Amino acid sequence: MMEALKSSSSMEFSERLSSSVKEVDKIIRSYLPKVEGYQETVMDAMNYSFMAGGKRLRPMIMLKSYKAFGGEGRIIEPFMAALEMIHTYSLVHDDLPEMDNDELRRGKPTTHIKYGQAMAVLAGDGLLNFAFETALKAVDMEPSQEESLRILKAMKVLSGKAGIYGMIGGQVVDVESEKKNEQLSMEQLIFIHENKTAALLQSALMIGAILAGASDEDISVLEEAGRHIGVAFQIQDDILDVTSTTEVLGKPVGSDEENGKLTYVSYNGLEKATEDQKAMSAQAVSILTKLKDTKCQNEHMEFLIELVESLVNRKL
Amino acid sequence: MMEALKSSSSMEFSERLSSSVKEVDKIIRSYLPKVEGYQETVMDAMNYSFMAGGKRLRPMIMLKSYKAFGGEGRIIEPFMAALEMIHTYSLVHDDLPEMDNDELRRGKPTTHIKYGQAMAVLAGDGLLNFAFETALKAVDMEPSQEESLRILKAMKVLSGKAGIYGMIGGQVVDVESEKKNEQLSMEQLIFIHENKTAALLQSALMIGAILAGASDEDISVLEEAGRHIGVAFQIQDDILDVTSTTEVLGKPVGSDEENGKLTYVSYNGLEKATEDQKAMSAQAVSILTKLKDTKCQNEHMEFLIELVESLVNRKL
Repeated sequence: MMEALKSSSSMEFSERLSSSVKEVDKIIRSYLPKVEGYQETVMDAMNYSFMAGGKRLRPMIMLKSYKAFGGEGRIIEPFMAALEMIHTYSLVHDDLPEMDNDELRRGKPTTHIKYGQAMAVLAGDGLLNFAFETALKAVDMEPSQEESLRILKAMKVLSGKAGIYGMIGGQVVDVESEKKNEQLSMEQLIFIHENKTAALLQSALMIGAILAGASDEDISVLEEAGRHIGVAFQIQDDILDVTSTTEVLGKPVGSDEENGKLTYVSYNGLEKATEDQKAMSAQAVSILTKLKDTKCQNEHMEFLIELVESLVNRKL
Repeated sequence: MMEALKSSSSMEFSERLSSSVKEVDKIIRSYLPKVEGYQETVMDAMNYSFMAGGKRLRPMIMLKSYKAFGGEGRIIEPFMAALEMIHTYSLVHDDLPEMDNDELRRGKPTTHIKYGQAMAVLAGDGLLNFAFETALKAVDMEPSQEESLRILKAMKVLSGKAGIYGMIGGQVVDVESEKKNEQLSMEQLIFIHENKTAALLQSALMIGAILAGASDEDISVLEEAGRHIGVAFQIQDDILDVTSTTEVLGKPVGSDEENGKLTYVSYNGLEKATEDQKAMSAQAVSILTKLKDTKCQNEHMEFLIELVESLVNRKL
């Protein structure tokens, strides 16, 4: 009986999730540049990269956080699109030959394979720059004085979490350790996860709350939750690489070990890694649950919690 | 007698110019990131590229425009640094092997030669992203409500003029024509100059005025002036490539022609190119002179006019 209920509720979440993906996808696509003008190739390459799919996780989290804190207007939309553009540009540049040298992403040719290396550099630059242009479209939505100040605050988080003290910072340490083939310390490994992965999740949670008018205290609590989610998500990756089967994972298992890559699991062993991952996930969920119980007693915060649980407990 | 006067006044300008370069350089350097943390290599690479020199033309124009319109505070400073960071990142990415493949810039190894290609991509990304982080530091300078709105307006110009409808757009057309070895139309050539070169000069003039509280009309007049300055500056480049001597220019003359590169001169002939260049320069100077006579009767607008004249009439 309990099992049946659980399975039905879990199915219900997956349905709500897929409808939310559609909603978010529709919103963020509407902010893509038109393909026109002498420079149309770069717009085409930007849109190609952006449309290559993805779970639209970051803009979805941003939208749910906004609604959970009572946000109702449309000024969240340009920020949702902006964050996904930043995520997309980072993939385009990561795939370049001088970086990870990947020719396929989600089964499709990467941007430099399809448009050439020079255009991939420019499309990545274009997406990063266009992210800020896009976020600033919130200014055209007749915000109140107070909302204008929130837009400035949200811009600071958007740029800060994406840069050298956020995503790029994590990427730099990751790339350097691979190029130099140096063994990472545990602190450096956590640094990479906190910045390369967690920073944009923090950005999503925080910007949603900022634009909805949440308090500084709540925003910093969300920053903490985002950090736990990001790191737990990455450790789960490492755990699955060891424990899953090729069929479930859709890629060869044990590839990290074969590549001699230091992971949280290889460093701490599977048992402790699993324990720590559960503890971090629990902390994130506990923070969000407390917010739900005190300030955000609504379906949006409930969805956010379910989403986080599904991410950190995923089997593939 | 006239000659003697002219020469003394021109020497005076060059002295004021060099003192202004020092002032501007000091301001913008103070916004560079500290080299620290696990990701310190990227900060080092960013600072290396930024310090490689340059005339600091864009932040200087921005500062003068700000002061010409009566600006007195420090909120202009982070925007000056931001614009120079954007200019610098564009050079770092332009120099990459997949783009212009340059190993030297101003006699020094380019960023990818010194730090490797992956780090040059990341340093460029880091600079572009940090430009927006830096500009937003104006928010920490206790701006009034009105100034906060000006900061938002300035952010829109900063991002817009740097992106696919500005500098990147021009770069895309330039790169594509070279890769495909296609003959450009006159319209495409003008498009490249207006975007690759003029857009950041427009940004400098406009942001200075915006932050000082200038009217929308004055801002759009400055946009027009910036366009003329940028295009005239580039045509002067093409003219010098044909008419100057290797000694004066410091690089081989006639190199454009040898490379089969279409320029304004090869398209229109030297006589008409010179004529058009003079007409554009005159238009820019006339716009600024009108502003000086009506709204900005001060030494800053005078300096700006002298600076523009020296740029479009330069012999090297």
